Amino acid sequence: MRNNKGRKAVVLLSGGLDSATTLYAAKKKGFHCFCLIFDYGQRHQRELRAARAIARAAHCAYRVLKIRLPWKGSSLLEKNVRLPQPGRAGLKIPSTYVAARNIIFLSFALSYAESIGAEAICIGAHAQDYSGYPDCRPEFYAAFKKVIRTGTKAGTEGRSIRILTPLLAKTKSQIVRLGNSLKVPFALTWSCYQGGSKPCRRCDSCYYRAKGFQEAGIQDPLIY
Amino acid sequence: MRNNKGRKAVVLLSGGLDSATTLYAAKKKGFHCFCLIFDYGQRHQRELRAARAIARAAHCAYRVLKIRLPWKGSSLLEKNVRLPQPGRAGLKIPSTYVAARNIIFLSFALSYAESIGAEAICIGAHAQDYSGYPDCRPEFYAAFKKVIRTGTKAGTEGRSIRILTPLLAKTKSQIVRLGNSLKVPFALTWSCYQGGSKPCRRCDSCYYRAKGFQEAGIQDPLIY
Repeated sequence: MRNNKGRKAVVLLSGGLDSATTLYAAKKKGFHCFCLIFDYGQRHQRELRAARAIARAAHCAYRVLKIRLPWKGSSLLEKNVRLPQPGRAGLKIPSTYVAARNIIFLSFALSYAESIGAEAICIGAHAQDYSGYPDCRPEFYAAFKKVIRTGTKAGTEGRSIRILTPLLAKTKSQIVRLGNSLKVPFALTWSCYQGGSKPCRRCDSCYYRAKGFQEAGIQDPLIY
Repeated sequence: MRNNKGRKAVVLLSGGLDSATTLYAAKKKGFHCFCLIFDYGQRHQRELRAARAIARAAHCAYRVLKIRLPWKGSSLLEKNVRLPQPGRAGLKIPSTYVAARNIIFLSFALSYAESIGAEAICIGAHAQDYSGYPDCRPEFYAAFKKVIRTGTKAGTEGRSIRILTPLLAKTKSQIVRLGNSLKVPFALTWSCYQGGSKPCRRCDSCYYRAKGFQEAGIQDPLIY
């Protein structure tokens, strides 16, 4: 990211360490950040509390949007569907996939960005590591940029709204190292999908978080 | 549209005559239609009642999704902002533009379509006539198709979800004629933006509806 002092950016903030690191990276580059947090019925509602705490720690304005997808089909929305076990990276799209979730999130972020005159939308997607989600891939972001150019007032009037994905090519351990250097308050972040009051240490998300910290040689301050 | 007997389609239904005609066109082509209706805080909430009535008249399942855009900036969402006057077609994007609205609607439709295994999303956008909205243009739909291919499970697994815009190149009078031939219950549709209990006959939407019926030589059964 180039220097963007005083420019506005909408940052999609989930409460996990990826989006928290993205927020701190955007701040570091001078953006005036507006966080957008989604309450979409995720089983791990605990992450909403984390997202709010991170936004406050970063001294950023935030909005929580509540949306409901009344259709079923994701273990991230239904407590009676089993979460996937770790170690399946790259094999198939995990059951935690929520149909078109990032597309919906980006659409709202785009609407928000257009409304406040923001020049960028920042999202902490990364193609490597555990993802396997189609809406985390570079090709998808390239296609969405074209949607912005052709389908918004800002785009057609020549005011570009960029999508910034500073983590896209990074591994989890690289993200941990970056976050550490940016002084991201890791203790406030939340990764576990399970929805309990403590990290389960068994789900995909716990597994790859622990692996990331381990490979980075950094202690996770969230007691695992 | 080719013959699609038994295939599922999600139809974005606003309650206006464009989306009603799109629904009937999709049914005619054999689609099993699932209507998606948005309560997005529009000043003309009356159209929600129209949308439900049309879905029922067409014997189609429907869902009403409530979403709120807490940011401001559209005369369609704010009653104290003046609606544009008719006759500005092509001059500029009207004040009724809601930032990224159709992108948000399509994202939800995409999520719904993926979840129920629908093969198509139908939307009644048309580039001609009064629109001027960037998210009604063919280039935008082409870009969004690429988002579907790259950013969804369905797309990456080779099951395409098509976006069908049967009205895209049509004028309002052609839409009226098509709707008439498909026996669209025009009396149930609602176009006025104003939010009153009767059509205002002054807003953009009333103006172009009246013009369309007049040019088609068909009587509008909604008492104007």
